[in-house]
Amino acid sequence: MYEGIVQELIDELGRLPGVGPKSAQRIAFHIVQTESYDPTRLSEVLAEVRDKVRFCQQCGNVAEGELCSICRDPRRVPSVICVVEEAKDVVAIERTREFRGLYHVLGGAISPIDGIGPDQLRITQLVQRLADGTVTEVIIATDPNLEGEATATYLSRLLIQPGLRVSRLASGLPVGGDLEYADEVTLGRAFEGRRVVEH
Amino acid sequence: MYEGIVQELIDELGRLPGVGPKSAQRIAFHIVQTESYDPTRLSEVLAEVRDKVRFCQQCGNVAEGELCSICRDPRRVPSVICVVEEAKDVVAIERTREFRGLYHVLGGAISPIDGIGPDQLRITQLVQRLADGTVTEVIIATDPNLEGEATATYLSRLLIQPGLRVSRLASGLPVGGDLEYADEVTLGRAFEGRRVVEH
Repeated sequence: MYEGIVQELIDELGRLPGVGPKSAQRIAFHIVQTESYDPTRLSEVLAEVRDKVRFCQQCGNVAEGELCSICRDPRRVPSVICVVEEAKDVVAIERTREFRGLYHVLGGAISPIDGIGPDQLRITQLVQRLADGTVTEVIIATDPNLEGEATATYLSRLLIQPGLRVSRLASGLPVGGDLEYADEVTLGRAFEGRRVVEH
Repeated sequence: MYEGIVQELIDELGRLPGVGPKSAQRIAFHIVQTESYDPTRLSEVLAEVRDKVRFCQQCGNVAEGELCSICRDPRRVPSVICVVEEAKDVVAIERTREFRGLYHVLGGAISPIDGIGPDQLRITQLVQRLADGTVTEVIIATDPNLEGEATATYLSRLLIQPGLRVSRLASGLPVGGDLEYADEVTLGRAFEGRRVVEH
C-alpha cells in the first residue's frame, strides 16, 4: 500500500513475532517521522547480533565468550543446578534473587507433536555435568505446561543416582491471585502440594 | 540482565512504540535463535529509510520522489481533495476504494495541550492548492475525536469560499456493530445524522 522503502520496513517489522500489520505500520511511521528517534543503533545491532552472540559451553545460556556470566562467577554455588527450558527463564529466576547455584538451559521441552525428543535437547550435556559428583541437587524448573511436565518427568527418572537430590518447582496458586479465578488444574495442584502450617 | 549485544538488542527494540520489555525480549530471542529468520534486510532498511523516504510536495503523503503515487496518477479526479491527519489515513481510505480524488495530509491535528496550532499543520499549503479554482470539493476526514473535530471545525470555517463545497465524513454506528454497545456520543451522532429511508 505504501511506496518503496516504507512498505519494505512495514513488511520486515511484520515478520517479527507478535508484531501484526497494524503495529508494524505504527512502528514504521514512528521510525520515519519521529525526529528524536534514531534507528541507526538498532540497525547496527541487528546486523551484528547473529555473529556476536554465543551460547555458554557449560550451561547453554546466552554468553559473549565461552562461558556465560553466571558460570564464570566464582560466588555461585556449583553443587546446585537449576534446569530450565530457555535462556529467558534464567533471567526470570535471576530476578527473584532466590537462587545462587548454576543453570542448565535445555533449549526447549520434549514435544512429540513438534518433533522434539530428548535428543534435540541439551540432556546429554546435563548428564555429563553430573558425572564428577560435584552437583548434589538438580532443581527442574521447566514450564508448568504439558511439554514442561513431560520433560520434568523424563529428567527426574533419567537422573536417579545415589547422592543426587532431584526436585521440581512447586505448583500452586500465584501470589496475589484470586482463588475464585484459578483454573481447576492449578487449584488441584495447590491442594496436592498443601503444607502443614507450623505453630 | 543479559550480556552485551543481546541486552542491547532488547533495549533498542524496547524503544519502539508499543513494544514493552517482555515483547522486546521475545523478539530479541526470536532474532537470535531462529535460524530460518534473517535480520539482515531489516537492518538494511532501518539504515536507509530515513534518507530514502520523502514526502509528496503537493499533498504531504509518503513518497519516493517529488510527488506521491496518488498525485502522479492521471486517473485521479483533481477537483476533490480529502483532508486527513496522517499518511496512514490515506492508506485506510484507499482500502475502501470509495474515493477517486486527491489527498492532503495535515501532519496531525490541532491540539493546544501538545502545542500544535494551525501553523504547525500543512494548512497554508492546503489553502494554496485551492487558489486556482480547480478544486470544487474538500472532504474533511480528520479523526472523530476531540482534536480531529477541532481541526475540522477550524478548517470548515477557514475554507469558506464561493464555488467550494466543504463536507465532513459521517459519524454514526459502525457497520457490524451492536447498538447496545455503542457509546452515547456515537449513538447521539447516529440520531443527529439519521437519514430518511427512501421508498
